[in-house]
Amino acid sequence: MVNERPITLVNERSLDIITGYHAHIYYDEATRARAARVREALDRNFKIELGRWRDEPVGPHPRPMYQVAFAEGEFERIVPWLSLNRDGLVVFIHPMTGDDYADHADFAIWLGEMFTLNLDALRKSP
Amino acid sequence: MVNERPITLVNERSLDIITGYHAHIYYDEATRARAARVREALDRNFKIELGRWRDEPVGPHPRPMYQVAFAEGEFERIVPWLSLNRDGLVVFIHPMTGDDYADHADFAIWLGEMFTLNLDALRKSP
Repeated sequence: MVNERPITLVNERSLDIITGYHAHIYYDEATRARAARVREALDRNFKIELGRWRDEPVGPHPRPMYQVAFAEGEFERIVPWLSLNRDGLVVFIHPMTGDDYADHADFAIWLGEMFTLNLDALRKSP
Repeated sequence: MVNERPITLVNERSLDIITGYHAHIYYDEATRARAARVREALDRNFKIELGRWRDEPVGPHPRPMYQVAFAEGEFERIVPWLSLNRDGLVVFIHPMTGDDYADHADFAIWLGEMFTLNLDALRKSP
């Protein structure tokens, strides 16, 4: 029948635009020891690139954090592992699609709490 | 050296306790049409079990929603797809570990916003 074509999402985005992921593990003075244990366990369990401890807010991040970069193939293990083992820490995960602003503003995945990011630090998509 | 054993997380949880996932797609009157498009696209793209539209709050859920059940193997595609294509909807994803309370309270993954769940509707772990 003429009208039986599938309903489609306007501008459905393909997974192909994702080239990797960042997880940001937030901490403060009270949770730094836990963040260190999570960091060590991530390093032991997964294929990741660990950023250094950033004790001062940097870029869009309103709190101290360290960054964990990983490839698409690690997503299915790292994200569930963080959901089980973040130990009360707030974790922000986002894909890398080439649009830094959308990655942080629209495609964000949060565990524990949602912080307000400083999105002005990111260039809006053209 | 004697003290060089790895630092370990207290009670590190294994991914083996996860038997599947639920995603809950929240909607309201204003967003129902979008929720329908997301539902149709999920059904078309992924191996899922779709729950019916729940127009009234049910169990721990404070807003209308429908449930999307899927196996571990779909996580790496469905979760990023939702992050790219939720179209402004709030999505709550949790693993199934046999501890309903922890699954919703501690292991929760949120996209868009975090709603306060009615956790009293769930039995606390023994």
